[in-house]
Amino acid sequence: MSKQTPHTRADYRYFQTITTRWMDNDVYRHVNNVNYYSFFDTAVNEYMMREGVLTLDSAAVCLVVETGCQYFSPVAFPDLIHCGLRVAHLGNTSVRFEIGIFRNDENVAAAQGHFVHVCCDRDTQRPLAMPSAMRTALEKLRV
Amino acid sequence: MSKQTPHTRADYRYFQTITTRWMDNDVYRHVNNVNYYSFFDTAVNEYMMREGVLTLDSAAVCLVVETGCQYFSPVAFPDLIHCGLRVAHLGNTSVRFEIGIFRNDENVAAAQGHFVHVCCDRDTQRPLAMPSAMRTALEKLRV
Amino acid sequence: MSKQTPHTRADYRYFQTITTRWMDNDVYRHVNNVNYYSFFDTAVNEYMMREGVLTLDSAAVCLVVETGCQYFSPVAFPDLIHCGLRVAHLGNTSVRFEIGIFRNDENVAAAQGHFVHVCCDRDTQRPLAMPSAMRTALEKLRV
Amino acid sequence: MSKQTPHTRADYRYFQTITTRWMDNDVYRHVNNVNYYSFFDTAVNEYMMREGVLTLDSAAVCLVVETGCQYFSPVAFPDLIHCGLRVAHLGNTSVRFEIGIFRNDENVAAAQGHFVHVCCDRDTQRPLAMPSAMRTALEKLRV
Repeated sequence: MSKQTPHTRADYRYFQTITTRWMDNDVYRHVNNVNYYSFFDTAVNEYMMREGVLTLDSAAVCLVVETGCQYFSPVAFPDLIHCGLRVAHLGNTSVRFEIGIFRNDENVAAAQGHFVHVCCDRDTQRPLAMPSAMRTALEKLRV
Repeated sequence: MSKQTPHTRADYRYFQTITTRWMDNDVYRHVNNVNYYSFFDTAVNEYMMREGVLTLDSAAVCLVVETGCQYFSPVAFPDLIHCGLRVAHLGNTSVRFEIGIFRNDENVAAAQGHFVHVCCDRDTQRPLAMPSAMRTALEKLRV
Repeated sequence: MSKQTPHTRADYRYFQTITTRWMDNDVYRHVNNVNYYSFFDTAVNEYMMREGVLTLDSAAVCLVVETGCQYFSPVAFPDLIHCGLRVAHLGNTSVRFEIGIFRNDENVAAAQGHFVHVCCDRDTQRPLAMPSAMRTALEKLRV
Repeated sequence: MSKQTPHTRADYRYFQTITTRWMDNDVYRHVNNVNYYSFFDTAVNEYMMREGVLTLDSAAVCLVVETGCQYFSPVAFPDLIHCGLRVAHLGNTSVRFEIGIFRNDENVAAAQGHFVHVCCDRDTQRPLAMPSAMRTALEKLRV
């Protein structure tokens, strides 16, 4: 990945609020780099569950094949995280989400990254054409 | 600990809302037992930070000497957690918090537990008489 | 729980080694209190999986109804954790594990706690008489 | 990132063993995508601590500016993780680590990623020319 410019909130289509936890901070007193991916994972799955296109029992599950993040400025407990979400690419079986991490009321992203899901059959774990309801929900986030 | 009866919201003095995360759920599809302690840890420290009696630079730090939890009914991502907080005992150097975990709009606790903090000097890690501002903040939660 | 005396390794029947992780340390530079329960959870389940009495597909699952821990002295990444395990009570449907946390080569526990599992039917989540193979495996740890 | 070919162990210079934990598995019964970054974070920092070039009190701290991962095949508790480590780029203030995740005795990576550290002054959090001892330790991993 080349060095990106931080996005602003206007670059995203949907926002999910996530509370930080005391143990998110590491010895450097900021949210540890690992936890940002938990915010990505949560925003993406919560969006799909709220849209009714993913349940804990879905025949079609979404497996992660690639993730990445660039960190611009720290966040720290007890900051509130606002995750901006958008869809940058929507293929036959896969989707590339892009996520911006906004700290409290800030308009410029503290971090941003991507998250690639492949839609798979729960039992065989083989790729599956994305169900149309899922595709419709994801189209709403497309940029 | 003997088997307790689940508390209701009226049993607590202060509430902190915590969002669950996708990875909080374990293979049994419920929030894993470990994560409840992260809710306790967050509610206690956030209360003290909001009251202005604990900062990441405080000379007096709060170290945990005992915790415990009883689990009554499951919670699962994307449930919203409401942590009820109260102080059951306030000593010269230590405080016993009791915490109830309430799922979404439910009035009966899904789990409840305790969390014992000892106030210590940051450098020596030896117990310290609790600063009066901290004591005042904790008195407000006393039952 | 009343204040306990730290156990030694001789008080336990089985040991599981667990590596600490950078993010286990919190702002106080020690393993955060929450993570000890992850060590408990791991030692208990890994013992049962190694004994062949629990799989990710078992019809009988083990749900946690109570946990607790007393913390005596800190551990910190990159310390190696040795979890001592023993069974203090074995009922018809439930088992009480006791766990000691030993830091590197130390013989006195840095923390110790308990973990109560109830054997349940995976589908109904109702208590179930413990399968005999599971009981036999747990008897080996009994004190 | 373009789709990569999985590496083998011979592609790495140093290995760190990490034990998985019960709660690393998510509802899909595999180690959740987030936890891989905890393995990266642990392998990198443990290498530097073992080499004596990073302590919890170092004046020079290492802050993370970019991370990424591609996932090829699942790992699941209780698998043992072997993290392969190498240095792909070593600049004046920054280092790009590449990490391979190997499951148990497998020779082909289950996942691989990168982790970019910038050496900073602990107090100002501004980039700092990397201390020579740290540079020497990192040169050993260079490919």
